[in-house]
Amino acid sequence: MPKPIAALAIAGLLLACGRAAGETADGGHGGPVVPVLLGLVIILAAAKLGGEFFERIGQPAVLGELIFGMAIGNLGLLGYSGLGFLPTDRGLEILAQLGVILLLFQVGLESNVEEMLSVGWSSLLVAVLGVIAPFFLGWGVSAWVLPQEDTLVHVFIGATLCATSVGITARVLSDLGKLSSRESKIILGAAVIDDVLGLVILSVVAGTITAANTGGSLDALKAAAIVGKALAFLAGAILIGGWLSKKVFRLAGFLRVQGMLLALSLAACFLLAYLADRIGLAAIVGAFAAGLILDGVHYRDLGERTKHSIEELIQPIAGFLVPIFFVLMGARVDLSTFGRGTVLGFAALLSLAAILGKMICAAGVLERGRDRLSVAVGMVPRGEVGLIFAGVGAQLLLRGERVISPPIYAAAVVMVIVTTLITPPALKASLARGDRRQKQPAQAAAVRPAPPQPLG
Amino acid sequence: MPKPIAALAIAGLLLACGRAAGETADGGHGGPVVPVLLGLVIILAAAKLGGEFFERIGQPAVLGELIFGMAIGNLGLLGYSGLGFLPTDRGLEILAQLGVILLLFQVGLESNVEEMLSVGWSSLLVAVLGVIAPFFLGWGVSAWVLPQEDTLVHVFIGATLCATSVGITARVLSDLGKLSSRESKIILGAAVIDDVLGLVILSVVAGTITAANTGGSLDALKAAAIVGKALAFLAGAILIGGWLSKKVFRLAGFLRVQGMLLALSLAACFLLAYLADRIGLAAIVGAFAAGLILDGVHYRDLGERTKHSIEELIQPIAGFLVPIFFVLMGARVDLSTFGRGTVLGFAALLSLAAILGKMICAAGVLERGRDRLSVAVGMVPRGEVGLIFAGVGAQLLLRGERVISPPIYAAAVVMVIVTTLITPPALKASLARGDRRQKQPAQAAAVRPAPPQPLG
Repeated sequence: MPKPIAALAIAGLLLACGRAAGETADGGHGGPVVPVLLGLVIILAAAKLGGEFFERIGQPAVLGELIFGMAIGNLGLLGYSGLGFLPTDRGLEILAQLGVILLLFQVGLESNVEEMLSVGWSSLLVAVLGVIAPFFLGWGVSAWVLPQEDTLVHVFIGATLCATSVGITARVLSDLGKLSSRESKIILGAAVIDDVLGLVILSVVAGTITAANTGGSLDALKAAAIVGKALAFLAGAILIGGWLSKKVFRLAGFLRVQGMLLALSLAACFLLAYLADRIGLAAIVGAFAAGLILDGVHYRDLGERTKHSIEELIQPIAGFLVPIFFVLMGARVDLSTFGRGTVLGFAALLSLAAILGKMICAAGVLERGRDRLSVAVGMVPRGEVGLIFAGVGAQLLLRGERVISPPIYAAAVVMVIVTTLITPPALKASLARGDRRQKQPAQAAAVRPAPPQPLG
Repeated sequence: MPKPIAALAIAGLLLACGRAAGETADGGHGGPVVPVLLGLVIILAAAKLGGEFFERIGQPAVLGELIFGMAIGNLGLLGYSGLGFLPTDRGLEILAQLGVILLLFQVGLESNVEEMLSVGWSSLLVAVLGVIAPFFLGWGVSAWVLPQEDTLVHVFIGATLCATSVGITARVLSDLGKLSSRESKIILGAAVIDDVLGLVILSVVAGTITAANTGGSLDALKAAAIVGKALAFLAGAILIGGWLSKKVFRLAGFLRVQGMLLALSLAACFLLAYLADRIGLAAIVGAFAAGLILDGVHYRDLGERTKHSIEELIQPIAGFLVPIFFVLMGARVDLSTFGRGTVLGFAALLSLAAILGKMICAAGVLERGRDRLSVAVGMVPRGEVGLIFAGVGAQLLLRGERVISPPIYAAAVVMVIVTTLITPPALKASLARGDRRQKQPAQAAAVRPAPPQPLG
């Protein structure tokens, strides 16, 4: 009975009308926070309405947030443009980015380094296979459909297919209470390696294009430097960060000011996210590393004095910010691009290449008795990482023309959407199949344990 | 021993150097969230360092957040400009605004309508006196120091002195565990009325200036309309909002998706803040009204199913966002304006007028045996409301010249700072004096009870 929330959503829409109409009237000195306030009301309503609806039809809540986000982002197609500011508002964008950073921080908090290393070889193999196969499949599809384009364009499209966005997968695993399973560790470890590999390929391809424009060739040393600093960051964050955070949290136990545990945890998360971005990795990789470091071991001195653990303190903040990310990711989908026939055909082939390319990841799981299909399915979504790649291509010029032209960009966005939307139901089905195959009652009972923090 | 946090702060500073130097280097695709991440690390470190230091010398933590904010905002005077983006970054500004909105929402949650009405006459009288006295004192000071300026300039400066910013006072009362005292209710009620009155005066004065420019005169009907809609908003929010929220929360009890209580509470807070801004009030008035409505009565159906109350769920989010507001308010102070002798003299007189003007509020407390001085001191800070007023004046033109010229603006900002900085220690001293005078052991023991939510 989501009637009251529907009423809230309708109220939000009516307000948006009033806003669009009254923009130039007097009143309103709140500045840039005002559209953010309206956007937050609509996004929170859409997230909970969508989540409720999809949970009732047996799908993860995150799928509802994406689909309801798509709906409110495309009201322009129905002639209503009052919510047109949502996908592009910079304040909401920043809140969404903080949301996905906190999501990966939470994922890191639920993981730990020893477990990550114990699945290390599987993760590495899964990641490498999951980068090579989609790269060549994407190249092939592009060369077949667009024979008139330069080889570098095909290479770039292949690179766009490499990335794995662990956000959606992590959220589905969290919704199903599966984050602590061994398959989850393999996926999360592989996604981190994948992000590093994908960004290396992106940097190398972009470097080649720049070199082609100036008549030079690729600098192998530069490529090696990119690989080196990525690996150094992760190792450094885990080793130095782990040692430092132990000291910091122990000494912080002597302080008397309120909110120290929360402030220190958030500062560590944001600092590593910032550092990851600075050296050219995705910020979410840093947030994940911060979560790994703060995984419950070192802050006991401080934590036992307080009533709450880091996880409990982060949960309401994440509960506020994470849905903003998923609703906005849905709202950014421009459904009108689906209308163009040729774009749709290319998009379908690209999506197929993207999905099949990651299926080969199943072969990378070295351990016996594991749910290989679920690992492969978990690697499928491209999410925001794919969008970042396509966006970089749309800005790069090759001999005066955009490497990723608007129709190719539209097709790449469709591929990102398809791989992202297909994952929640596919992963849920695949995990259920894996559980049935194992035929172990204890394992089967663990399909849907109570989620870690049932709030509100 | 804030050594570890000092190390964190130093690390942040070093990073900022790296950032300023490496801005044009490769790496970094995170977009507008990246400076926000760095800013958050520095702000969280400054807030906790400052709070710890000031708590150790017996002052409220919020004063430390302001002073440490001033320090990091004025590193440019020492020749270091790496943190120059902090006071103007739009993402941090939005987070700070959400912080002050959530602070007033929390204040509203700890109040309720019946108690507000029981101190209604005192609040009304305190508010009216606290608007009239500073208005004429400010006018007089301005006419005396700046005889060459137009009368409307003096009127505008008087209007700037009217506002009361309840944020600082509420935070001090909360830090001291005094939010439930009768004096607090009078101050908070008066601050709400004050905000309404101040915005009415601002609108009327601005209307007069616009009319003077076009050769017309002030429309009395328009002034009446401003008053009317402000009163209608508060009454409507409390009556209709109270009725509606009761229904919404009862029906939401049937939903199964996670995080419903948090999402509904935040949506109500942001919706009323948005509506308040739309009709020309400050957004924080709406947030306060939302807190009043949701004060623990109506959400029991939903709340009892969950482990946490609204207050508990909001606390970590507020603990993250509220310090951002206070650190940024400090960082926005440009200490170099203090260097100009004439500005400093005018600023000193304005500050005196602003403080003395609010002292008359003590006469508005009708009830016997109340701590009148603390009520008057609690009304002193102008905070962000005073800054908003001065900012509006700096943008208004009277016969082609700015109503509030840059030197006058600097003086107004100094007045805002002085009234804001003086309040935490003055209010603490005044409350302690009030407690001693009552000589009741039970009352004296309540000077510093455990704060409502000691997190981390």
